[in-house]
Parts: sequence; C-alpha cells; structure tokens
Amino acid sequence: MSYCLATYRVYDDKADFNKKAQSIAIGMTVGSWTELPQAKRDEMQKHLGSVQSVEVHDGGPGERYADLTIAYPDVNFSRDIPALLVTVFGKISMDGRIKLTKLGFSETFRSAFPGPKFGIEGLRERLGVFDRPLLMSIFKSVIGLNLDELSEQFTRQALGGVDLIKDDEILFENALTPIEKRVEACIKAAEAAERETGKKLLYAANLTGPTSQLKAQALKAIDAGANALLFNVLAYGYDVLHELSSDPAVSVPIAAHPSLAGAVYPSPHYGISASVLLGQLMRLAGADLVLFPSPYGSVTMPREENMAIRDELITPELSLKASMPVPSAGIHPGLVPFIVRDFGTDVVVNAGGGIHGHPMGTEAGGRAFVQAIEAVQQNVPLAEYARSHAELQSALDVWGGEQ
Amino acid sequence: MSYCLATYRVYDDKADFNKKAQSIAIGMTVGSWTELPQAKRDEMQKHLGSVQSVEVHDGGPGERYADLTIAYPDVNFSRDIPALLVTVFGKISMDGRIKLTKLGFSETFRSAFPGPKFGIEGLRERLGVFDRPLLMSIFKSVIGLNLDELSEQFTRQALGGVDLIKDDEILFENALTPIEKRVEACIKAAEAAERETGKKLLYAANLTGPTSQLKAQALKAIDAGANALLFNVLAYGYDVLHELSSDPAVSVPIAAHPSLAGAVYPSPHYGISASVLLGQLMRLAGADLVLFPSPYGSVTMPREENMAIRDELITPELSLKASMPVPSAGIHPGLVPFIVRDFGTDVVVNAGGGIHGHPMGTEAGGRAFVQAIEAVQQNVPLAEYARSHAELQSALDVWGGEQ
Repeated sequence: MSYCLATYRVYDDKADFNKKAQSIAIGMTVGSWTELPQAKRDEMQKHLGSVQSVEVHDGGPGERYADLTIAYPDVNFSRDIPALLVTVFGKISMDGRIKLTKLGFSETFRSAFPGPKFGIEGLRERLGVFDRPLLMSIFKSVIGLNLDELSEQFTRQALGGVDLIKDDEILFENALTPIEKRVEACIKAAEAAERETGKKLLYAANLTGPTSQLKAQALKAIDAGANALLFNVLAYGYDVLHELSSDPAVSVPIAAHPSLAGAVYPSPHYGISASVLLGQLMRLAGADLVLFPSPYGSVTMPREENMAIRDELITPELSLKASMPVPSAGIHPGLVPFIVRDFGTDVVVNAGGGIHGHPMGTEAGGRAFVQAIEAVQQNVPLAEYARSHAELQSALDVWGGEQ
Repeated sequence: MSYCLATYRVYDDKADFNKKAQSIAIGMTVGSWTELPQAKRDEMQKHLGSVQSVEVHDGGPGERYADLTIAYPDVNFSRDIPALLVTVFGKISMDGRIKLTKLGFSETFRSAFPGPKFGIEGLRERLGVFDRPLLMSIFKSVIGLNLDELSEQFTRQALGGVDLIKDDEILFENALTPIEKRVEACIKAAEAAERETGKKLLYAANLTGPTSQLKAQALKAIDAGANALLFNVLAYGYDVLHELSSDPAVSVPIAAHPSLAGAVYPSPHYGISASVLLGQLMRLAGADLVLFPSPYGSVTMPREENMAIRDELITPELSLKASMPVPSAGIHPGLVPFIVRDFGTDVVVNAGGGIHGHPMGTEAGGRAFVQAIEAVQQNVPLAEYARSHAELQSALDVWGGEQ
C-alpha cells in the first residue's frame, strides 16, 4: 500500500501520545474504527491511517512534547498539494498545540509533480556559470518609479556584475511599469550591460494579479523577453505555483518569494516548519529558486532551520531537480564566507541594502560581492583580498567581515 | 488619499515602538525616506505609508507589546487579496514577534469585491427559513463509501430535518463518488426527503482538484443540480475564492471551510488573527457561510476570538452582504442555547458527531437539534422541552444540557 507521511510535534503536559497518534490516524482518515463491524473494517482497511512512530520528549511542564508520524493512504486524496495539506493538517491544525514538521511523499504521489523545470543545473546552464555561488541583486524602493528610473536602477545593478536581478515583491501590476513594459526595458538594459560585462543576466519579474490571469501575465512577460519570474507563492497557494511551473509554455525559471511565510513557521507550538513550507513544498511545487530568511542578517532564522530548508531543497532522496537556495535579508559581502560554509557553492548570494547601500554606489556594491565570491573561491581571506580590491575593502569597513 | 489599514501586535521587551511603527510604514512602502532629496520626497509622498496609532502595553518581560496601526496608500497595490497581504504582511511576517490582528479596507479597495453573492439573507431566501438558526449536518466517515452508501447516509441526515448537509472536507474528487455523480445522488435523496419533511435542503459538495479546474468542477456540480459548494479556502488562497464567488456562473452559495487555519491564527506572537483570517478576509472574498472552531466543543477557540470572527462576518461597516457564521466542532443539542446567546438567530448550528452519534440514530440526532432550536425559539428550557421530546431528552442524557 502506498502512503504519504506526516510528522507532527505535539505539546501536551499530560496526553497519552500513543492514543493521540491513534486518534489522528483514525480521525483524519476513516473517522471511526472500533465501533465498525468486522466486514466494514475489512473494506475500510485500505483507507485507514496508521501510526508509524511516537517519540516522547518529556522536558517537564510546558516542555513535554512528542513527535508523531502518521501514514496516510494515497488512495484517500487526489494528487495535489491542497488535498495533501487538508488531509494531513486541515482539521488538526486547529486542535491544540500541534505543528506539522515534516512530510514524506510516496512515489505515487510525487510522480504527479514534475518539480522545478530548471533547478540548480538548469539555472547554471542558462547563466553559463558552473563553479561559484551566483549573485542576485534586488530592486530597491521601486514603488512610484517610472520605466526610465527603473531601467537606470537596473543598469547600475547589472554593471556591478550580478547574475540575477529581481523585482521587489511588493511591486504589483501598475500603470507606470506594467509587466511587459518593465520586462522590455529591463531586458534591454540587461543586454546593454551584458555587452559591457560579458556576463549573462536573468531578470525575475514579479508575477501578480488575479489567479486566473497569472498564466497570461507570465506569457506576456515571456513574450516581452522575460527570462525569469518572481512569485509570492504563499499569497496564492502552492497549487498555483505547481500549475505554472508544470506548464510547458512557462519556459523560464521561477523564483519563489517567502512573503507571508512568517505567519506560519516561527511558532514552536503551531503552524508548519520552515523546512516543509519553504523547503519540501516549494520544491514539489516546482520553484527553481527559493528565497528564505538567512541566519545571518536582519530578518533572521535559526541556523538549524536554515540548514533544514537547504537539505529539503537539494536532497537526492526526492526524485526531482534540486531548487536553488537563496538565503536572504541583511546580506553583505562580509557574510559570503559564511554563506559558502553553510550552503557550498550551490547558493545564490542575494542582497538589496548590501548592494545599494555601498558607500561607493550600487555598481561598486555589486563589485564588492563579486570580489568577496572570488576571494572565497580562491580560499583567500576577505581582508587580504580587500587590500587590492577597493570596493570589497569599503564594504568590509562599513559592514564588517569574517568574525 | 485613500488607504488600507493594518494593525499589528508586536512583542518586544525593549523596542521603541514608535520607531518600529515608522520603520514598517517606510520599509513596506517607499523603502527609504530620510536619505531622499526633497524633490524626490514630494514625488514619493503619495506612496509613503503612515503611522496611524501606537498603543503600548507594558506587562513586564515577555508581556511588553504594542498595537501598531499603519496606513498603506491604495496606489501602491492592485485590488486583490494577495497584493494586500503581501503589502501589509509579506516581509514583516518574518521579522520577529509580530501578528496581524486587524485590517481596514478603503472603499476604493473594497469596491473591487462584490463579496458574498447570497449572504445570510440570500441563504435564508433559498431555504425559506427566516426566523430561526439554521441546522447543518456533516457527512461522517465518507472515505471509501460508494454512491449508494453516501446516498443512504444523506437520506438519514435529511430525514432528521436539517437545512443543510455538507461533505466532509477530506472528501476529494475520487472514482467512487465523483462530484457530478455525488451531487446527482444526493440531490435526488434531498428531493425525496423534502417530499417527506416539507423542508428545503441545501447540499454543499466539496470543490477540489487543480486550481485552474475549480470553476469547471463547480459548473459540473451545478449542472448536476448542486445548490451549494464547500471549499477549503486556505488550501487554495483567498483570491481563488474571490474569483469563484464573483463569477456569475457560480450561482450557488459557497461555504468556506477553515481547514489549515490553525497553522496561522492560534499563536499570540505570530500569524494572523482568526478574526482577520476567518472573518474579514473570508467575507471580502465572498464566502456565504464561514465555518470556524466554536468556543464550546472539542476543537475550541476562546469565546472572545469567536465573537470577533462573528462581528467581522456581519458588521454593517463593511458594505458587503453578511456571511453566515458557522461555529463548528463538538456541537450537541445542549449547546444550542449558548450558540443563540452568542450568535443570535443568524447562525448555523453545525454538527457531525452530535447528529450521527445520537443513541437513537442519525435521524433522531437531527430531530434532537430541531427540537433544541424549537425550545430556544419558544424560550423554553431544554430540560423542560425534552420531557415531551424523546430525541432531545436522549441527547441531553448523553451530552448534557445547559450548564
């Protein structure tokens, strides 16, 4: 029998956790069991959830919890993420202190998902960069800008030598910079910059608007030359990402923004773990790049949680292309050695303020990051490399370096 | 200038909350302010968020918090719920202990939403019931049932005298009971029951499957005779509900299920309040009925939070039809007086186990609720009414009555 797994952390000072696990396994599948006649039981057996494991941790009052793993027969739900989530966490999400901490996808279920169309490798092929971390820059303060201003900011970022530039996630479809005009202007700026830097650039345009129009918007952007898209997945639902990413016509990498995720993952007692929300489900739904709060910067997440996201994005245990991890927020050049230590080279170094806020300007901000990446690749301490690289030196002076 | 409001509760033992509010108002709109030249400021003024109020509550370490209200200019975002949520809570949801506790919709923004197509009044008209709480029954243990079994369970519920019957939210599109067959069988059973009871019945069929196919599924169900739909809103996103509910072809009431909501509302420190999640946003998105955990039953929610959801569903301050409140889970006939005390008559008394688990069977379970509603309408204590109503007496014996 084929089934998907869900692991929960349940806090309770007194509960019999084995009984609790049984009641979830029955309650979320066939509804009742002990009162069923034997003939009915035989018939319903294939629908019955089962307890896989119960691990109790008793740290005293307020700290007594258990990790329960339940198996849900695939035959009970359709092959889509809404059905899986409603099955494993729909009703019980509201039943006391319970957090969904891990999913296990059966091959039967998984096979309905093509996953990332490009993934880490496809992304590298598109950029022609195979041996180093990628560098992404984020537009800053774009609300109210017109096409010329946007294009100028794009050029300054591009000339700094970044590999990807992404829209701000709060830039929605608007009269000043509608997506097809924005893409046209930015791709034109990208091509001009590429001629100067010799570096290929991807521009991720923010895909927004009514759900039913997103595909048309994506195609409009792609027709205008877009070579990547940004998407606020949690504002729309994983299934929407899945439908976009698995559509052959949506022929560019999709970067998933973690917008709103903080409403779900940070509590120890409720919600869904970051590794499920921003790891497992984003990859299953087909995100080629996944942004999440880094453990270094201003909007922080514990390092362990970060590493759990990374693991889910790249684990070969899931038969899908790997999604590129993009730890974000508060990133400056001095952090590059830590990013590479934690993520290896398959990572996007993603900066906003750390590029635009550089004392020598946005272009120099990009160059400082390029230099930091070079130093790490050559195994040279940043401080040493900075002696012959003014932009990096300036960045280290402002934001500090290796600690 | 027209703007939408967002109120946050922010916990912090030390923060300068006025500064925090300012930083949200600027950071979530124009990005930066003090460093802008005056000419640029004049230009950007219309995009700048502003602090409406800061109320600090200092209850000592761990209990120092503030309620911050920020105004977001409508010009910054498109007229859809994903854009609003990303604007007001996208990034800052991940920035420490912060919970979104209230939204305020400008008339400009609100006017893009037709809201519930039927609402409380339209629902009452469809049922021809104007002066009492409605009664809803939930299918139980439906996974694995075939059409005959489903139809039989439907009939038993219908003959008990309920007004609405809803699918279990974990019943997805499946080979045994595909939606059009299920609707056909249940509506046939409903018509037979109606001839017997003289009562009109609505059957809410669970709308599931890929997002892009939901409208087609809804129309398929409606073509087959469906007179209501059930929808797991949070598994799909509010915009999907909005698009369905505002589509003229989707000509039946939609009941919103709170599935997965517990991943978002229960923490005091993170997430989105139940009154926003299951109140304001469900009504804005067009839910005619909204289910939520009751303050009485097995899956409980504090009474104050329940009353806040109710208020948002019906407040005349929002220029949209009122959504019908459906406090759910653990409801038995003895609770009817409390439900009416808290919600008045504009409420759906919604029961699963409280109907199917009746000692005299499912039909009697429905009748016990009908009797409890009659008693409350006639202002007769349940225990007294039960003397001449065996089904109610039996229910009170099992589950207890007024406390």
